[in-house]
Amino acid sequence: MLIGRVIGEIVATRKHETHEERKILLVQPLNLDGSERGAAFVALDAVDAGVGDRVLLTTEGFSAFTSVGYKKAPIDMAVIGIVDSVELSEDPA
Amino acid sequence: MLIGRVIGEIVATRKHETHEERKILLVQPLNLDGSERGAAFVALDAVDAGVGDRVLLTTEGFSAFTSVGYKKAPIDMAVIGIVDSVELSEDPA
Amino acid sequence: MLIGRVIGEIVATRKHETHEERKILLVQPLNLDGSERGAAFVALDAVDAGVGDRVLLTTEGFSAFTSVGYKKAPIDMAVIGIVDSVELSEDPA
Amino acid sequence: MLIGRVIGEIVATRKHETHEERKILLVQPLNLDGSERGAAFVALDAVDAGVGDRVLLTTEGFSAFTSVGYKKAPIDMAVIGIVDSVELSEDPA
Amino acid sequence: MLIGRVIGEIVATRKHETHEERKILLVQPLNLDGSERGAAFVALDAVDAGVGDRVLLTTEGFSAFTSVGYKKAPIDMAVIGIVDSVELSEDPA
Repeated sequence: MLIGRVIGEIVATRKHETHEERKILLVQPLNLDGSERGAAFVALDAVDAGVGDRVLLTTEGFSAFTSVGYKKAPIDMAVIGIVDSVELSEDPA
Repeated sequence: MLIGRVIGEIVATRKHETHEERKILLVQPLNLDGSERGAAFVALDAVDAGVGDRVLLTTEGFSAFTSVGYKKAPIDMAVIGIVDSVELSEDPA
Repeated sequence: MLIGRVIGEIVATRKHETHEERKILLVQPLNLDGSERGAAFVALDAVDAGVGDRVLLTTEGFSAFTSVGYKKAPIDMAVIGIVDSVELSEDPA
Repeated sequence: MLIGRVIGEIVATRKHETHEERKILLVQPLNLDGSERGAAFVALDAVDAGVGDRVLLTTEGFSAFTSVGYKKAPIDMAVIGIVDSVELSEDPA
Repeated sequence: MLIGRVIGEIVATRKHETHEERKILLVQPLNLDGSERGAAFVALDAVDAGVGDRVLLTTEGFSAFTSVGYKKAPIDMAVIGIVDSVELSEDPA
């Protein structure tokens, strides 16, 4: 999983039926220092996240469509948690 | 999922039976500013997309063959939506 | 899926039983202009492709072993079509 | 699988129910010489690992949620072992 | 699949039960000319490979745990064949 920031939403009227009742979010993956980690991805929302939220992003299909409660759905990324805090050890080595 | 642009089609007469009735599209992934994001991929069409359409592209097999209605088919990418608009927050941080 | 060119074969006498009756191909992924796209991969053959053929390559396990007709087999890439032609739009934007 | 070092934990109160009783770890992938291998990932804990432990990290969803004992859960990375030692051959070629 | 060379073993006493009776190998992916292709990975052994062997490496979880005979196990890479020879065409184009 990756940590990301919700930065927008996608509007798509013609789409697969399983996407009808879910927000399609734009999520920017982040490094631990808050800098951008590659380019933004499109992910389905499973926890009612909104723009500005720091979130947990799953990047694998099986996990993603499970998170939104469908047995089989064409989803390969989903927002599955809101991050409250990140606790880094001072000296992990 | 990624946002992409349909830029062409593949013709393949000798292929797996599950591909018989579907268009095989060439899709160029895009960044949020519309610039190219890596090289183009080959994806099956699930929403009757055509050349020039801005689309949602799923890049995971389980999601992809689900989108076209097959239980098991050798598909690992599919076009699953037509993008109407992208709403970016002005200040997501 | 990717477009690729079959460039060789692998001989492996000690291998998983599901690989016994299939060719193990070396496939070089290609860009749209025919240039090499990263390094070559090893893929199982599902359409009786041979050296020199331009092919469709699936790069996901679930798709790959489905293409060769096994329910569960340790395959993560397969050649699933022979490409006849690629039709690029002149101005996709 | 990758070798990594646990460097922290994530606190997320609003999250998928399957994550309730598990630690959400921050894991830094490592090269064989102990140097960092790309950026850190978020992974669920399956072996009661803690900060500072050198661990085995699985990076695929099906494997990850199996490791924590759920049939279907939105998990795509998990810590599945504590590494005691790495035995490198002197001359593998 | 990738071609690789077994370069070592991992010792992990605290690990998932499905790993108990299998060797955990360190495998260095190789290019066709024998040079290193990225960094080494950790993979379960399915064909009794040893240090120095040139092997076929599957890099997808579903394929990997199938290869070692488990229905569901936290494995995402496995060694599934010993490579005898690689036959490259002289002029694949």
